[in-house]
Amino acid sequence: MPLPEITNLAQRRGLFFPSAEIYSDALAGFYEYGPEGMRIKHRIVQLWRRFLVEREGMIEIDGSIILPESVFRASGHLENFNDPLVVCETCKTPYRVDKLVEEKLGHEVPEGAALEFYDEKVKEYNIVCAKDKMPLGRTTRFNMMLQSNVGAMKANPAYLRPEACQSIFLDFIRIWKQGKVKLPLGIGQVGKAFRNEIAPRQGLIRKRELEQMDVEIFFNPDKIDHVENWDDVKEYKINLYLLSDKEIHSLTCQEAVDQSIVSGKTIAYFLARTQQLGEMLSFPLGKMRFRELEKEARAFYSHETWDFEVNLDGNWLELAACNYRTDHDLKTHAETSKADLQVREEGDISKYYPHIFEISMGLDRTFIAALDASYRKETRGEEERVFLDLPHRIAPYKVGIYPLMKKDGMSEEAYRIFQRLQSMSVNAYYDESGSIGKRYARGDEIGIPYGITIDYDTIKEQTVTLRERNSMQQKRIPVDALDEVFWKFSTGRKTFDDLAD
Amino acid sequence: MPLPEITNLAQRRGLFFPSAEIYSDALAGFYEYGPEGMRIKHRIVQLWRRFLVEREGMIEIDGSIILPESVFRASGHLENFNDPLVVCETCKTPYRVDKLVEEKLGHEVPEGAALEFYDEKVKEYNIVCAKDKMPLGRTTRFNMMLQSNVGAMKANPAYLRPEACQSIFLDFIRIWKQGKVKLPLGIGQVGKAFRNEIAPRQGLIRKRELEQMDVEIFFNPDKIDHVENWDDVKEYKINLYLLSDKEIHSLTCQEAVDQSIVSGKTIAYFLARTQQLGEMLSFPLGKMRFRELEKEARAFYSHETWDFEVNLDGNWLELAACNYRTDHDLKTHAETSKADLQVREEGDISKYYPHIFEISMGLDRTFIAALDASYRKETRGEEERVFLDLPHRIAPYKVGIYPLMKKDGMSEEAYRIFQRLQSMSVNAYYDESGSIGKRYARGDEIGIPYGITIDYDTIKEQTVTLRERNSMQQKRIPVDALDEVFWKFSTGRKTFDDLAD
Repeated sequence: MPLPEITNLAQRRGLFFPSAEIYSDALAGFYEYGPEGMRIKHRIVQLWRRFLVEREGMIEIDGSIILPESVFRASGHLENFNDPLVVCETCKTPYRVDKLVEEKLGHEVPEGAALEFYDEKVKEYNIVCAKDKMPLGRTTRFNMMLQSNVGAMKANPAYLRPEACQSIFLDFIRIWKQGKVKLPLGIGQVGKAFRNEIAPRQGLIRKRELEQMDVEIFFNPDKIDHVENWDDVKEYKINLYLLSDKEIHSLTCQEAVDQSIVSGKTIAYFLARTQQLGEMLSFPLGKMRFRELEKEARAFYSHETWDFEVNLDGNWLELAACNYRTDHDLKTHAETSKADLQVREEGDISKYYPHIFEISMGLDRTFIAALDASYRKETRGEEERVFLDLPHRIAPYKVGIYPLMKKDGMSEEAYRIFQRLQSMSVNAYYDESGSIGKRYARGDEIGIPYGITIDYDTIKEQTVTLRERNSMQQKRIPVDALDEVFWKFSTGRKTFDDLAD
Repeated sequence: MPLPEITNLAQRRGLFFPSAEIYSDALAGFYEYGPEGMRIKHRIVQLWRRFLVEREGMIEIDGSIILPESVFRASGHLENFNDPLVVCETCKTPYRVDKLVEEKLGHEVPEGAALEFYDEKVKEYNIVCAKDKMPLGRTTRFNMMLQSNVGAMKANPAYLRPEACQSIFLDFIRIWKQGKVKLPLGIGQVGKAFRNEIAPRQGLIRKRELEQMDVEIFFNPDKIDHVENWDDVKEYKINLYLLSDKEIHSLTCQEAVDQSIVSGKTIAYFLARTQQLGEMLSFPLGKMRFRELEKEARAFYSHETWDFEVNLDGNWLELAACNYRTDHDLKTHAETSKADLQVREEGDISKYYPHIFEISMGLDRTFIAALDASYRKETRGEEERVFLDLPHRIAPYKVGIYPLMKKDGMSEEAYRIFQRLQSMSVNAYYDESGSIGKRYARGDEIGIPYGITIDYDTIKEQTVTLRERNSMQQKRIPVDALDEVFWKFSTGRKTFDDLAD
């Protein structure tokens, strides 16, 4: 679905919108999640936590956003987390020169391209400032970390983390020493990260204040092929877009290992779990792929990278970077801090740095992709309607409760039903304002799977109308049966179709 | 319980610990939540969300941490969010001079005291630098906001929000215009805030990177006494520490309103809900109070302030500021931005700025207070033990699953039970390392209410030992009964005492 339509829906229903929008100095690249957007986002996090973290026996931490300079000196961000920048010599408008050059070339420029390469291309294609058509200056490297000064004497330069994972590397040894863990050990974290993008764009897709869901799996490199639940995935097919022929290959995890397409079973296993998470978010199998990155395009710390991408309206969007970081992180932090970050388990001959495989997922992008995958527009007779076919597990509410009118006891009865369902942990939503048609339309647009209407018959004979979002089908249900119906829906023992007409 | 003991337990079990601790330039005032600490913190948020936000029909948003300068010009933070600072003229060590003076005076100095007042007192008491005993310079105002520069050309000064609430004020009008809300309207938000404290201290109590749980209730000031569920609280007693006699008065909400101790029912109602949230966190009634703040001690925007405090080891600690902010926020943002932030409902004669009552709760402090309130040390015979008597709803796990030994099928059976309980949404924790006594001790120290031990009898006759944290009592239960037992525990229909011995 074209992104503008999603953005339009999101703004109409307040799912997300620009921060501080009432001010003229509002900053590009900063967004707010409104009430229902926040609920959908939370439920995506909850799904990630249950499926990837808890189900895999991982643990989770919550670390600081601001970290001291040493951390980013060791991680390499101080030196390497740059975008190539050109500035208009006249009006001072900044541009990401790689994007300008890519437009002319029609293909991507590798991340590590030399500054001179850009200067040559700017000259060759006669690229000028889009605003005043004046010449651009020479290319420089622009560090994308946001800095702040902590302390009264401004003595401590510190940075807002550009990725959530560094805390995990820093905290690993303490968690290890607490002694209740063994390798492989997965540690997850959800949290904000900040990137001073030269040109933030496309709403939630390239934000300056973003949110990530990371898992870092620490493992013994000699045991990269020891995966406890390998049998669960070995016949599961993952979509691998290979550099060799630039084609998507749908291979079983076993095939990917046997053909040495990945470094080992640990990698294939977690690629499979990532794609399965995508399936749970309703991304069609044919619209997901893992793109193999060539050396020049990989982050500076990665030995092997698969970008997990989904296809949005013809364009592939990276949702997660799956990086085999080897021992880069623990080793450089150990060398810089002089702390001993090596481990040794029963049976190990000597100490070593565990290797790390990471799945670093952009939460905002996953949110947008989930909206996109569920966006439906359909025409029935004269009427056109839009609805979000969100999987029930990430819908903002399970059911909307709507009194037909505000009079004759309908509101009171509706509110009683609302409270009863709430008390049973059914996420219910109460709405009595406007016409019933408009309330249904709103519920559909924010993806609420069911609607219950309380009308005169409810008062008379204690039945309600239960309406299903996708089919718009309605069934008459006794009020007393609602508890059981929603209980069975939530346990998967019944669907709407099983109910009597 | 003395704070050092809590901190000691927390560090021993990894509940929280300093950020980037392996580095010598680690910053004071920054902490990480470890795996179990994070779980407890999450569950406190969940309790707040269910009890205060969802149960009261409020909505929740998730806004940006970084906001443009205009926002803080309007809010007054740019001008007023200061602490009085003195610096040693020789070694440049910075001090909060109000704290130095308060130590000498033996009582608090009002927030708005003049700089000259501090200079006089420093002279009068001959206060010198604690480090080198050299003279201190003159008092200046130090703004506690952390600044950063957004954008490639460093043209946009921006600040890390010092409190989570500003987004709510900024977003109010958009949510209002979406048209599905009416006054009173509560909007909540959980998120990070940053304060460049001159002297961060006491672990989680005065952090530089902190987390807040805010609710802002927007209401028509003419209807401050219209509270739908007033009957629920009118006979409920709140502990009010009044300025007039510096005593705690336990008054019903109705009395507080009748005696004009609060500005109206809306205030009393939400003070009651706040204290009830404290009760749900197990704070003893006698250790909670709302402290009335005199004009000079109130934040610059507040018409009436009650600091919600709990008593930790003899000292009152502020957990939440309950501020009647009147129309200050909407009005100043409207004036500064030129946006129209007034509202008008059916029946209203003209447009007006809603008033705001806020409950701004420190999450880190609430976490520490919950640990403190549940910390128990007891001696049985020769043995001393420590445990956290955490309310079940905020315990990191519901039950620990412990195979007695790793052999003879006990691990496999234990893991099967673990997975079965997990699949029923019982938060279970699996641990097979170390002696059973050590595993119980660890479970007790992180507040897990129950433990299940799998032993030879489990293999033989399919029964397990169920142990209760507080009493350390053990009962033998058939494996097949576990589902039902935990189901009944979670619905409150059964307690450990109801089980047969």
